[in-house]
Amino acid sequence: MTKNLLQHINNPTDLRQLDEAQLPQVAQELRDFIIGVVAVKEGHLGASLGVVELTIALHYVFNTPEDLLIWDVGHQAYGHKILTERRENFHTNRQLNGISGFPKRSESVYDAFGVGHSSTSISAALGMAIASNLKGDFEKHHIAVIGDASIASGMAFEGLNHAGVTDANLLVILNDNAIGIDPSVGALKKYLTAVKEGKNPKKNNMIKSLNFDYSGPIDGNDIFAVLQELKRLQKIKGPKFLHLITTKGKGLQQAEEDQVKYHAPGKFDASTGEIHPKSEENLPPKYQDVFGLTVLDLAKKNEKIVGITPAMPSGSSLKFMMDAFPKRAFDVGIAEQHAVTLSAGMATQGMVVFCNIYSSFLQRAYDQVIHDVALQNLPVIFCLDRAGLVGEDGATHHGVFDLAYLRCIPNIIVYSPLNEIALRNILYTAQLGLNHPIAIRYPRGRGQILDWQKPYEKIEIGKANCLKEGTKVAVLSNGTIGNNVTLALAEMDNPETIAHYDFAFVKPLDENLLHSIFATFENIITIEDGVVKGGFGTTIAEFASKNNYTSKIKILGIPDEFIEQGTIGELQQYCKIDVKSLSTIFSGY
Amino acid sequence: MTKNLLQHINNPTDLRQLDEAQLPQVAQELRDFIIGVVAVKEGHLGASLGVVELTIALHYVFNTPEDLLIWDVGHQAYGHKILTERRENFHTNRQLNGISGFPKRSESVYDAFGVGHSSTSISAALGMAIASNLKGDFEKHHIAVIGDASIASGMAFEGLNHAGVTDANLLVILNDNAIGIDPSVGALKKYLTAVKEGKNPKKNNMIKSLNFDYSGPIDGNDIFAVLQELKRLQKIKGPKFLHLITTKGKGLQQAEEDQVKYHAPGKFDASTGEIHPKSEENLPPKYQDVFGLTVLDLAKKNEKIVGITPAMPSGSSLKFMMDAFPKRAFDVGIAEQHAVTLSAGMATQGMVVFCNIYSSFLQRAYDQVIHDVALQNLPVIFCLDRAGLVGEDGATHHGVFDLAYLRCIPNIIVYSPLNEIALRNILYTAQLGLNHPIAIRYPRGRGQILDWQKPYEKIEIGKANCLKEGTKVAVLSNGTIGNNVTLALAEMDNPETIAHYDFAFVKPLDENLLHSIFATFENIITIEDGVVKGGFGTTIAEFASKNNYTSKIKILGIPDEFIEQGTIGELQQYCKIDVKSLSTIFSGY
Repeated sequence: MTKNLLQHINNPTDLRQLDEAQLPQVAQELRDFIIGVVAVKEGHLGASLGVVELTIALHYVFNTPEDLLIWDVGHQAYGHKILTERRENFHTNRQLNGISGFPKRSESVYDAFGVGHSSTSISAALGMAIASNLKGDFEKHHIAVIGDASIASGMAFEGLNHAGVTDANLLVILNDNAIGIDPSVGALKKYLTAVKEGKNPKKNNMIKSLNFDYSGPIDGNDIFAVLQELKRLQKIKGPKFLHLITTKGKGLQQAEEDQVKYHAPGKFDASTGEIHPKSEENLPPKYQDVFGLTVLDLAKKNEKIVGITPAMPSGSSLKFMMDAFPKRAFDVGIAEQHAVTLSAGMATQGMVVFCNIYSSFLQRAYDQVIHDVALQNLPVIFCLDRAGLVGEDGATHHGVFDLAYLRCIPNIIVYSPLNEIALRNILYTAQLGLNHPIAIRYPRGRGQILDWQKPYEKIEIGKANCLKEGTKVAVLSNGTIGNNVTLALAEMDNPETIAHYDFAFVKPLDENLLHSIFATFENIITIEDGVVKGGFGTTIAEFASKNNYTSKIKILGIPDEFIEQGTIGELQQYCKIDVKSLSTIFSGY
Repeated sequence: MTKNLLQHINNPTDLRQLDEAQLPQVAQELRDFIIGVVAVKEGHLGASLGVVELTIALHYVFNTPEDLLIWDVGHQAYGHKILTERRENFHTNRQLNGISGFPKRSESVYDAFGVGHSSTSISAALGMAIASNLKGDFEKHHIAVIGDASIASGMAFEGLNHAGVTDANLLVILNDNAIGIDPSVGALKKYLTAVKEGKNPKKNNMIKSLNFDYSGPIDGNDIFAVLQELKRLQKIKGPKFLHLITTKGKGLQQAEEDQVKYHAPGKFDASTGEIHPKSEENLPPKYQDVFGLTVLDLAKKNEKIVGITPAMPSGSSLKFMMDAFPKRAFDVGIAEQHAVTLSAGMATQGMVVFCNIYSSFLQRAYDQVIHDVALQNLPVIFCLDRAGLVGEDGATHHGVFDLAYLRCIPNIIVYSPLNEIALRNILYTAQLGLNHPIAIRYPRGRGQILDWQKPYEKIEIGKANCLKEGTKVAVLSNGTIGNNVTLALAEMDNPETIAHYDFAFVKPLDENLLHSIFATFENIITIEDGVVKGGFGTTIAEFASKNNYTSKIKILGIPDEFIEQGTIGELQQYCKIDVKSLSTIFSGY
């Protein structure tokens, strides 16, 4: 067997020079390549391993990039990137100035549509297919590859519902591995499982009901079976649906066996698959675990507490409560809209609902927050995980708009805890009953306090705190970025000039304290881990304007542009909200 | 036949005193009552007429308000309101301080969940049903009544997908009349039609695939058939689905025959059904028609133009283009998320996409605007109809958050035309190619200019205009509310003190002009038909803060509360942005 086919494949044209019989070898090499890089550089592993055969077959059969290929979510597109001119840069995956962890139009002509959030592929591909028809191109293929977790989201259904009544040249490929990041849930998943197991008629009636030409299920890890079926479908016009069964993590035993852990395993041994053990002793907790463990603790004492997550039980750490109280904690699948209105429905019946949604994914349920929760003033407790800059996941995943899009909504309380203890105490406070919805936003990753499980203390709603007195400048921080302020002050020669206030509440504002601050300081600096257009700093500018204060206000935060991937530290530096930048700014006064 | 059963029915308990045999008479009286009031007071007609029998049967069979009943959207809940303690107030429907046109929790214990936007009922009812289970109440019923247009929306699918794997005591009633406001569309509608016509197996496989106990289809206007089936379903635990066929507008011949027109017909003759003719001669155009006719005109010249509406072809006036270019204009159903990403997909292929969505409904697609359009900087042209205060539809429908939630997004242009000509010219300008997405927001209803079809003029992006010079105060208005400023100035004794600027662009801002304004005026007033928290005025306050200007800024707009129903004039008065309030404010300087 000739070695090193992969190293001669720079693009799909090279791939298409090979004989079909050589493709299993390409698959093996591609799998090894992905494992080799991800083992060292980290990233999403399992999803890409599962679609190695499909990736090769798609680029072999179809005429990419003329034919348009969209990977839903994009976790699974590493093989695609490697085969499309990015093999040599693949080691820069998810790094600052490197390639993105997701397909991205500006990165490659082979990335037909930028992705990151789930369930967009069918709509986007249908739009392209309709455009091709309008341009008189009836030969071009438009392909959406979507997982079984993503297709259960409402948006995917909307796309299918439209596509089924068009004559668009659309191929939807269901990559059915029965898992998203966590195992898939819901009635559709149950139905698909029955189809796979032959308990339903082989022909998938549900998809056929939506007017699609359905084929499958077939083994998506059998490259010849996939090739054969793609070639058949290539000749069929109109909307088509191919149901593939694949194994997430395929080819790495541990990844097949523990699909949740190997979704994005961190560094591991490429040959054995063993994850490099990390010593977690003496590390401060992840904010996620502060949420998860605190809600679990509170749920033990307050039987009205329920927890809801749209498909992120592991990522959010709601799994602690799900394990302990399986009837009171719900993974509703990738269904943010449903999650929010379900929460609202529960709240009408007196339940105390912790609805945990990643900040950037709450964008999916914005109307439900306004229309179903805030308008009815239902006391749903939104826990916005991964708020602010999230690091390597990049532009699609930064949770930087939430302060701006939430604070304009009447009735809602918006709170960003300074640290683990504040997060713990606001969770405690919220379940005591606030008579308003509240959004609690906290970042991805670890905090700074080892001994965080202190006795609960009730937080006064709307109250800001002075963390440090000062003479010349008042720094008003919102959320955990305030810890950068503290560190920056510690680095200064003359920190006595700088006062520091923790304005955890963006809404309601502590207007009393603000009056006193504006009466005292001629220079105000605000800092937040969110967009400067419309967020916390803007709130302070509004307050000053309303009250005719003339102090100078400098607003620090995320500039008005989409921020790409990098470590959180690198990105904070880019946005000038890292410790060093702050220290420089403070010293300028 | 005894007359006047209805006048003795104040609540469902009264209804339940009657014999079943009397219910057809109640239905007739209820229908007459609805027609009688709506003929004079205006409102939504057809939907409520279609569900008269269902409404009576539900309250007769189930123990409302203990059993929880949710009407999706709520257009069809007039009969429900009349039977639940609001008959005598029903003439105040949709009026200031009257009852809401939609079910509303704060109005009645019989309104289990506030509605207005579509497709929320299943999620809300499921939340209530799960809460009942957790509280140990396994007898309570939780009922969602949802139309065939609403059930095709992704959010409804998410609710069904979750409900199907629960043991929740949930009854979903599909009110299938094959029409929303406009006729329903999509593959699901086609499938349901086939089920109705007996072309598919009687048992609805699609719903059964989602693990529901399906029954139907049955004639929903046959009260005895509905009663019988509800009583049967009342005894069955778990998720149940009843498919009813009804006729929208049932009982009023014209309303049955022209279901689109009689959705909300305005004033009509209660006995004949004839709509009172309105003289439209010499009236300025509706903004909707300015949009619809202009896009049609532009589409004739630019073959890359396509139009998209999520279920509002009549309301948005995209129907003009749909009639003329059926292959280039698309009603995608109640699917805002899909509509936006479909637009993005089309834009990648060089199409010029006018995506028309009501402002408050774009909240449904917020993530898609950020993630699929703005992040990729695709030049989709969003036309946000019914921006600002919408009047009688009330709190759920006011399009007042858009400036705040859009201007925080990078790459997007945000524009509010001052009048019909500006709307026409920005539509023209946008299709020439902007290299950015743009959101164009305009209000419901008529403008002020008869002779609006002037030759096209290109609008300079980001440019504000001085409408009137002045000496003491600069009024900066955004959008059509600027016409109130003009009228207010005309009423003043000393208008020479007030300068007036049209800041149609909230993003990008005309910073040059702003510098000149702030250098000149010590008093600035901003005015917008949108929330004061985070909108146009806030943008000006941010600018002042950033540039250390100390002029006093007064921000006028919608206060930080949900605004109920009323005429637009009444609501503007409440918000102090009507002509008289402005005139008073201006005179105070």
